[in-house]
Amino acid sequence: RYLHFCKLPGRVMGIRLLHFTSVVIIVLLLVAGALTALLPNIKDDKMPNLRREPKTQSQSALDSFTLIMQTYNRTDLLLKLLNHYQAIPHLHKVIVVWNNVGEKIPEEMWNSLGPHPVPVVFKVQTVNRMRNRLQNFPELETKAVLMMDDDTLVSAHDLAFAFSVWQQFPEHIVGFVPRKHISTPSGVYSYGSFELQNPGFGNGDQYSMVLIGAAFFHSGYLEDFQRQPEAVYALIDETQNCDDIAMNFLVAKHTGKPSGVFVKPVDIRNLEKDTNSGYSGMWHRAEHLLQRSYCVNKLVNIYDGMPLKYSNIMIAQFGFPNYANHKNKM
Amino acid sequence: RYLHFCKLPGRVMGIRLLHFTSVVIIVLLLVAGALTALLPNIKDDKMPNLRREPKTQSQSALDSFTLIMQTYNRTDLLLKLLNHYQAIPHLHKVIVVWNNVGEKIPEEMWNSLGPHPVPVVFKVQTVNRMRNRLQNFPELETKAVLMMDDDTLVSAHDLAFAFSVWQQFPEHIVGFVPRKHISTPSGVYSYGSFELQNPGFGNGDQYSMVLIGAAFFHSGYLEDFQRQPEAVYALIDETQNCDDIAMNFLVAKHTGKPSGVFVKPVDIRNLEKDTNSGYSGMWHRAEHLLQRSYCVNKLVNIYDGMPLKYSNIMIAQFGFPNYANHKNKM
Repeated sequence: RYLHFCKLPGRVMGIRLLHFTSVVIIVLLLVAGALTALLPNIKDDKMPNLRREPKTQSQSALDSFTLIMQTYNRTDLLLKLLNHYQAIPHLHKVIVVWNNVGEKIPEEMWNSLGPHPVPVVFKVQTVNRMRNRLQNFPELETKAVLMMDDDTLVSAHDLAFAFSVWQQFPEHIVGFVPRKHISTPSGVYSYGSFELQNPGFGNGDQYSMVLIGAAFFHSGYLEDFQRQPEAVYALIDETQNCDDIAMNFLVAKHTGKPSGVFVKPVDIRNLEKDTNSGYSGMWHRAEHLLQRSYCVNKLVNIYDGMPLKYSNIMIAQFGFPNYANHKNKM
Repeated sequence: RYLHFCKLPGRVMGIRLLHFTSVVIIVLLLVAGALTALLPNIKDDKMPNLRREPKTQSQSALDSFTLIMQTYNRTDLLLKLLNHYQAIPHLHKVIVVWNNVGEKIPEEMWNSLGPHPVPVVFKVQTVNRMRNRLQNFPELETKAVLMMDDDTLVSAHDLAFAFSVWQQFPEHIVGFVPRKHISTPSGVYSYGSFELQNPGFGNGDQYSMVLIGAAFFHSGYLEDFQRQPEAVYALIDETQNCDDIAMNFLVAKHTGKPSGVFVKPVDIRNLEKDTNSGYSGMWHRAEHLLQRSYCVNKLVNIYDGMPLKYSNIMIAQFGFPNYANHKNKM
């Protein structure tokens, strides 16, 4: 072809060359466009004004975690907590699950108070559902999720330590709030905490769940959660409760081991009394605990068996806050 | 040959048959003898009077452990501790490593105070060596070893819990006494405890060793210990110290992880002040800690590198002795 061009008269060759070059340029542009389209893309749902993600993420997706915080009717607490959580070491991104249906997200105020240490994405929900926080968010890039209730303050020290523990137990829910179920002679299960009788495996107490409202777990479990029986979603929607119990069932079934690893918090606080909204959280409803026992039994029916397993392992941080936490008489 | 026999006259055949049968019988006896020799054999070294092992062991070798306790010049403490340890749940057998060279074991007294809950074997040593306790004793039938110093009292609750923890971390040394090494700018290592500076990985302290004088570990490591460089044995014999540091090096090299898992004891006591012998243990020697730093550096030379890794995981028993150990402000 090259030789053929050389043989053409000057003017025809010029036009052919022009055509050829144009085609090459167009092809290159198409290729460049395709490559750009393949790059990771942050979808700012309904948030075109949010700051774009910085070009370089300083935290690699393996050594960092994503905070997912669902919020309803306590924006003052949310913002107070975001000031704290946005600065936690190893945090990659924050996803706020906005259950305030019909209410605008505080985007102007958020942007006006930038820059922020990490990207914060507000995911507006169309229905106020407890299980909204268990979606498999496309913005989630890390293997680890930190899930926090919007009224819970856990110190940075506790979170840094618990994250390091999760990295050693990545298939478990590693968190700060242990609960258990017990079996009764009738075969009906009950849900509770220290006040319930010990399950009777040796000394001391046991726990069989770690609540996800203050815990690290693998983002893969959010994917798994999308594939559960419909009855599970119906149960959570009916009670507006028990999503955390369902997650513990899921994890226990998956691993065949205790779902959670309890890390003893040094400083964990509930801020609900500090809200101006007057709203004080679902667990104050009279039927809350009874509902959770109800959920345990329903889930055993749905999953055709009790997958939860007991553990009595309590993990604390060696030599923190001080040496007194491990020195002994010897 | 057989055909050949058939062809012989009756008397010759009779004698040949007799020879043949004798040979067969002798061969069968030899085979039977060989089989018997291959059966597991309890060697009661120099202890022909000890009670034979009961025909059935109620503890299976997988769910029980063997206590190995070395003793020197503190028989009063030994006997006090044996009364306690012989009754620990899940104990399979006790092996007492008798370093009192030339002194008779208290077998008459021991037998006269029977029956005992488990078999106790006294292994008389010919030389008083610290590393005598790290032999691969043929009496050892369990996967798990509990090694205790002869002046250390750990409660049954602590031991039962730590054994359950070991079962979840069988490749680690699971015990009650954490120690660490630190690196210095000169490259020379130091050995110590809480008093040394923190290694600097985040908050709090770290440990890189769990001492074997109050710990569970896999009996396979005793086998491995027999295959270490001669220089390791020479070092332990030279110092009459550091066998535990050497074991931590061995385990860390084997796993590529921190060698130990520290379990916070509820009730651990040192009884050395209670002895009538006037003997107060090696760790009171002025040079004890300096020796251990020396050992760390020698072992790094021998193994051509520092295999010890840091951990800050402290494990405690949930809800024991009471709920106060995990309740929080929430």
